Amino acid sequence: MSNLSIPTSRSLDVICLGRAGVDLYASEENVDLTNVSSFDKHVGGSPANIAVALSKLGAKAGIISCVSDDGLGHYVCDYLRRLNVDIQGMLVDNKGSRTSLAITEMKASNCEVVIYRNNAADLTLSIEHIDKAYIAQSKILLISGTALSSSPSREATLAAIRYAREAGTLVVLDVDYRAYSWRSEEDSSLYYQMAASMSDVVIGNREEFDVMEALDRDSAKSDDDQTAARYLQGATQILIIKAGELGSTVYTRDGQKFAQGIYPVEVKKPFGAGDSFAGAFMYSILQGYDLQESVKMGSASAAINVSRKTCTDAMPTLDELLSFIAVREAA
Amino acid sequence: MSNLSIPTSRSLDVICLGRAGVDLYASEENVDLTNVSSFDKHVGGSPANIAVALSKLGAKAGIISCVSDDGLGHYVCDYLRRLNVDIQGMLVDNKGSRTSLAITEMKASNCEVVIYRNNAADLTLSIEHIDKAYIAQSKILLISGTALSSSPSREATLAAIRYAREAGTLVVLDVDYRAYSWRSEEDSSLYYQMAASMSDVVIGNREEFDVMEALDRDSAKSDDDQTAARYLQGATQILIIKAGELGSTVYTRDGQKFAQGIYPVEVKKPFGAGDSFAGAFMYSILQGYDLQESVKMGSASAAINVSRKTCTDAMPTLDELLSFIAVREAA
Amino acid sequence: MSNLSIPTSRSLDVICLGRAGVDLYASEENVDLTNVSSFDKHVGGSPANIAVALSKLGAKAGIISCVSDDGLGHYVCDYLRRLNVDIQGMLVDNKGSRTSLAITEMKASNCEVVIYRNNAADLTLSIEHIDKAYIAQSKILLISGTALSSSPSREATLAAIRYAREAGTLVVLDVDYRAYSWRSEEDSSLYYQMAASMSDVVIGNREEFDVMEALDRDSAKSDDDQTAARYLQGATQILIIKAGELGSTVYTRDGQKFAQGIYPVEVKKPFGAGDSFAGAFMYSILQGYDLQESVKMGSASAAINVSRKTCTDAMPTLDELLSFIAVREAA
Amino acid sequence: MSNLSIPTSRSLDVICLGRAGVDLYASEENVDLTNVSSFDKHVGGSPANIAVALSKLGAKAGIISCVSDDGLGHYVCDYLRRLNVDIQGMLVDNKGSRTSLAITEMKASNCEVVIYRNNAADLTLSIEHIDKAYIAQSKILLISGTALSSSPSREATLAAIRYAREAGTLVVLDVDYRAYSWRSEEDSSLYYQMAASMSDVVIGNREEFDVMEALDRDSAKSDDDQTAARYLQGATQILIIKAGELGSTVYTRDGQKFAQGIYPVEVKKPFGAGDSFAGAFMYSILQGYDLQESVKMGSASAAINVSRKTCTDAMPTLDELLSFIAVREAA
Repeated sequence: MSNLSIPTSRSLDVICLGRAGVDLYASEENVDLTNVSSFDKHVGGSPANIAVALSKLGAKAGIISCVSDDGLGHYVCDYLRRLNVDIQGMLVDNKGSRTSLAITEMKASNCEVVIYRNNAADLTLSIEHIDKAYIAQSKILLISGTALSSSPSREATLAAIRYAREAGTLVVLDVDYRAYSWRSEEDSSLYYQMAASMSDVVIGNREEFDVMEALDRDSAKSDDDQTAARYLQGATQILIIKAGELGSTVYTRDGQKFAQGIYPVEVKKPFGAGDSFAGAFMYSILQGYDLQESVKMGSASAAINVSRKTCTDAMPTLDELLSFIAVREAA
Repeated sequence: MSNLSIPTSRSLDVICLGRAGVDLYASEENVDLTNVSSFDKHVGGSPANIAVALSKLGAKAGIISCVSDDGLGHYVCDYLRRLNVDIQGMLVDNKGSRTSLAITEMKASNCEVVIYRNNAADLTLSIEHIDKAYIAQSKILLISGTALSSSPSREATLAAIRYAREAGTLVVLDVDYRAYSWRSEEDSSLYYQMAASMSDVVIGNREEFDVMEALDRDSAKSDDDQTAARYLQGATQILIIKAGELGSTVYTRDGQKFAQGIYPVEVKKPFGAGDSFAGAFMYSILQGYDLQESVKMGSASAAINVSRKTCTDAMPTLDELLSFIAVREAA
Repeated sequence: MSNLSIPTSRSLDVICLGRAGVDLYASEENVDLTNVSSFDKHVGGSPANIAVALSKLGAKAGIISCVSDDGLGHYVCDYLRRLNVDIQGMLVDNKGSRTSLAITEMKASNCEVVIYRNNAADLTLSIEHIDKAYIAQSKILLISGTALSSSPSREATLAAIRYAREAGTLVVLDVDYRAYSWRSEEDSSLYYQMAASMSDVVIGNREEFDVMEALDRDSAKSDDDQTAARYLQGATQILIIKAGELGSTVYTRDGQKFAQGIYPVEVKKPFGAGDSFAGAFMYSILQGYDLQESVKMGSASAAINVSRKTCTDAMPTLDELLSFIAVREAA
Repeated sequence: MSNLSIPTSRSLDVICLGRAGVDLYASEENVDLTNVSSFDKHVGGSPANIAVALSKLGAKAGIISCVSDDGLGHYVCDYLRRLNVDIQGMLVDNKGSRTSLAITEMKASNCEVVIYRNNAADLTLSIEHIDKAYIAQSKILLISGTALSSSPSREATLAAIRYAREAGTLVVLDVDYRAYSWRSEEDSSLYYQMAASMSDVVIGNREEFDVMEALDRDSAKSDDDQTAARYLQGATQILIIKAGELGSTVYTRDGQKFAQGIYPVEVKKPFGAGDSFAGAFMYSILQGYDLQESVKMGSASAAINVSRKTCTDAMPTLDELLSFIAVREAA
C-alpha cells in the first residue's frame, strides 16, 4: 500500500479533468500525413483516454470537459457514456468553440500530429462550471496539465483542485505539457508548480519537469533527485518521473526511491502510453496495491496500449493486463 | 458570346481567391456523423474546387490562398500542383493558424458538416500578400465571397479586386455566403455590395442575394427582377441567381433575362454543385461560348458533380461534360 | 457657386461623423508635458470641432458619435447641446469603452499629444447604429477619416456614406489620418480610396494623400496634379490639398485649379486649423459662396483658430470671420 | 514588535508592485465632473502612492510597474525619482499601452472617478520582466491586488511573490480590489486566496474580503472572526480588516485580536486613506514598532491624507505624523 490516504464511500473512483476530443488516425500505417487517404475516428484527449482506461479496468470514472454542440461533440459524449464513463460534468458549447481534434499519421515514432485547438471547447471551461459537490463525490481528481494552459480553463482547474483538497479528494497531476497552448515557458512553470504543490501525486516525464523548473533553473542540468527534492513538498507525496524506454523513477515523500523498467513490445504508435499508465496506476492504488506494484501495473498497461493501433480502444481490461504481466514474468 | 470583354494573351485563365482546405468525407453513406467510423481525405474549399474544375476542363487556373505549415497544408499544395493548378499565390503560415477543415456526413440532403475555421489560415491573407502583377497575368479573377468575412482577408480581397480592375482582368464574384464567419448580416450586406459593384459577373443563390440586400431591404419579399435591377450597376454585366432544383435565372446589363433548368440526377451529396457550375461557366465563357450556352455547361457540370461522392475529384473533364449534355439532350 | 448640387429643405445643414471627445490642454504655455501642472478641459475630436465651427457660424450641425457613460461623456454631450449641435445621433456606451481623450502641451509647434484611444467609444459605432433617415435629413454628411480605421466603426462609416448617396446628401471626406489607429498603411489606402470615390469633396494634406496612394504608388514622388487626376473620379467633384504654411491647392472635376494662401498669425498651437477650415468651407458652400470664396473663408477661419488657445471655443462667429477677412484685405 | 521575521541588511525597505499612473484632480472642489473646468496633475496608483508614503517617512522604497513612453509616463518616472523612490524596476512600454489614468472630482464622498485602463501599461508586466535578484534586495514586497486582475501581469505578480518567499522577503498583500479589471468575482476569489496564502500580511476592507471569499461562501453573512480563521493559514501571520469610519480590526496567527479606531478629520476626498495606512504601517513595522502601535501609525497617516486634497503630495512626513498623533492623544 502507498501512504496516500484515499477516501472511501464515494460514488466515483476518479474524475478526470481536461480535454476530451476526437482523434483521426491514419488508416494506412507508415504513410506520411500528406499521402494518407483515409482516417479512422476515435475518442482522444489525455483525460478522456485515462477515464476510458479506468473504466475498462472496472473503476468508476467521470469526466469534466467540454465539447462543441455538433456531430463530433455528440460522438465523444456517446462513446464515453457507452464506455460507462460518467459525463454529467461534460459541457456542450454552442458559442463557436470546437471539439479538440487531432489528425495523425500511424508510425512507431516521429508521428506528425496536426492539432486543431484554436478556440478549443475544453479551454472554455470556467470556474462557474465546476461543481464542488461533484468533485466531493470522487476518491481521486485527475488533472491533465494542459487544462492550465489558458484562461478561463486555467481558473476552472485551479478551483477544482482547491475543491478537491477541501473535500479530501486525492489529487493526481498528469503534467501533459503541450507548448503550443502556453504563452511562455515561464507561465507554464508558474502554474505547474502551483498545481503540483496542491497535488498528492505528480506524474511527468523528464522534459516536462524541465519545463516546470524553468522559473528556478540555476543550471541547465536535469537531475531527478533534485527534482524530487524540489517537488516532494506541500501536498505532494509521490513523484513519478518517466523516461520513455528507460522506464520510470518513483520518489516518495518519506524517502523511498525505486525504478520501474518498461515491458518491451512492438510499438505501433508513440502515444497513449502515458494515459494508459496513469489509468492503470490509479486503478491499482485504489485497489490497495502497494506503490511498486501499482507502478508496474501502469507500466504493463502502457506497453499493451502502444502495441495496439488506437488509444481508447487499446486500453486493456483487467484480465488482459494481468495476463500480460503473468506471461512476461514467466518469460 | 457574352458581352464581357475578356483580355487575351494572359498566362493564366482564372485565378481563384479564397479558402483552400481539407474535406473529410464520411466513408459510409447515409450514416450520422456521430456513427461514422472513417473519413476519406479530399481537397476542398470553394475556390480550390473551382480551380480544380477549371483545370480538369483544360483551363489554366491559379489560386491565392493560405494553408498551415503541416501535413494537411502540404497535402493541399501537392494536390493542387498535381492537378496543374498554379500555386505561386499560395501562402504557408506557421504562426498558429490552421488549414480550413470540413468534416462531413455523406447524405443526399441535410448533411451535417462540422467546420474548423477558428483562426483559419486563409483568413490571415492580408493586402501585403497580394501581388498586383500576378493578378494582371490572368484573364479572370474569381472571388469567393467568404474571403470578405473578416480582416485582414477582407482587405486582401478588396485590394485584389481593385488590382484586377486596373489590369483589365475580369472579376467574377461567387457569393458563397457562410453566416458563421461574419459579425453581422449588415456587415455582409455592405461588403458584398461593394465587391459586387466592382465585379463583372455576380453568381449567388436567392438566399445569398437576400443577405446582400439586408441594408436596403424595405420589404421582406425577395424579387429576382428587383435584385437584378439593383445589382446590374457599377461594373456588373451579368447576374446569375440560382434556385436549387428550380435552376437559375440569368440577367444581363443590356436587358436579357433567361432561365436555365437543372439536369436531374441521383444526388449523392448536397454540395459541390455551385463550384462545379462556376468552373464550367467560366471555362465556357473563356472558350467563346455564348452566355446561354455557358450557363448550360455550368448546370450540366453541377449535375455531374453532385451525382458523385466527392467535390474536387468529381469535377468532370471536358469529354465527360460534353457527353453528359449530349446524352441528356438526346433523351 | 461651386458645381456641387446641394439638396434644399433639410432640417440639418451638416452631420459630422466620427469621434467626439475630451481635450485636456496644458494650462501653462511652452512647458513640456512632463512639467505641466494643470490642464483645462475642452471638447475635442475633429468631427466635434467641425460641428461646433458650423454651429458658431450659424449653420445647423449634428453629430454621429459615441462617448462613454460617465462624467466626461456627459460633458461632451452637454457642451455640444449647449452649442446647439444636434446630438440625437450620439450614443452613450457602458460596456467598457472610454470617451476619446487627448492630453496636450500648449506650444506653437512640435506639441506632444498623448492620446487615450484604446477601446475608444467612438470606434464602437456599428452599422446597426446608423439611422438612414437621420442622414437623409441633412444637406451634407462630413466624414472624419479616422472613423474608417477599425471595425465596426469602419462599416458604420461606409454604410453612412452609402445612405447619404442614396438620399442625395452631399458627402465631404476630411481625411484626418492618424497612423496609430490603422493596421497598416495599405489598409488605410484601400479604405480611404473607397470612401473618396463615394465623396463629393475630399480634403486632406499632402502627407495624407501620400498615404491614400500607398497601394498605387509607382514612384516615391508626390505630385498634386497626379493626385487630382487620380481622385477626381467616381463621385468626386472637388479636391483640396492642404500644404500647411504654403496654403492649399484646389482642383475641380471640370478642370479648375487654383491656390489659396494662408493668413499669417501668431500661432498658439498647431492643431484645430483643419477643422476650422472644414467648418467655414462647408458653411460658405451652403450659403452659396463660390468655391474660391469658400476656400478663402476656410483659410481665414483656420488662421483665427490657431491664433487662439483652444479648438472648439476658438471657432469664430460669422462676424469675427468676416471682420478678420476685411481687416486683412484692407491691409 | 510583531511576530513577523523581517530580513535585515537589505538595500531596500519595500518594493511596491502594481500600477503607477497619473491622477488628474478637479481644481474646483464640490463640482460635478461634467462641470469641472480644469485638473491638477499628480502621480497616483495605489503602489505608487504607498512607495511615496514610505519615502516621505524616510524608508527606502522601490517600485515594479510599467508606464507608456510619453510625457505622462516620463512624468511618473521623474516624480518618483525626485521623491527618492527607486525606479529600476519601472518598465517603459512603446507598443500601444497607456499609463494608467484616473480623472476625478474633488468631493468628500461619492466622488466620480473616470478610469482609463484599457490596455493599461502596468498590466503588460509579465514574468519575464520580474527580476528575482531585485526582489531579494528588499525587506518587504508590497503587492497591490489589482496587479492580479489580468494576464500577463497576474503571472508576473504571482512569480514575484514566489521569488520573495524564496528570498525571505516579507510579503504584504493590499487587496485593492477593482471589479472592472476582473473577468468574474470567482476568478478574483481564486487568485486573491492564492496570493493571500503566500502573504505574511493581508490588508483589506470588509467588502474586499467578501469578494475573496466568493468561492467558499456558504452563507451570505460577512463575519470578521470567520474571515480571520480562514485566512490566518499558509504563510499569513497578520490580517487587517478595515471598516471605514469604524476603524480596523486586526488579527494575528497567534490569536491576538484588537480594534483600532480612526482619527476624525474633515475629509477632502475619499481616497488615499488605504495607501497612506499601508505605507505608515509598513514603515512602523520596519522600525520595530509593535503591531498595535504600527496600526495606529497607519490610521493616523490615513487621517492626514484624506484631510488634504491630493494623494502622493498629501503623504505625511514622520514629523507630521508624530505631531498629529501627539496632538490627538493630548486632546
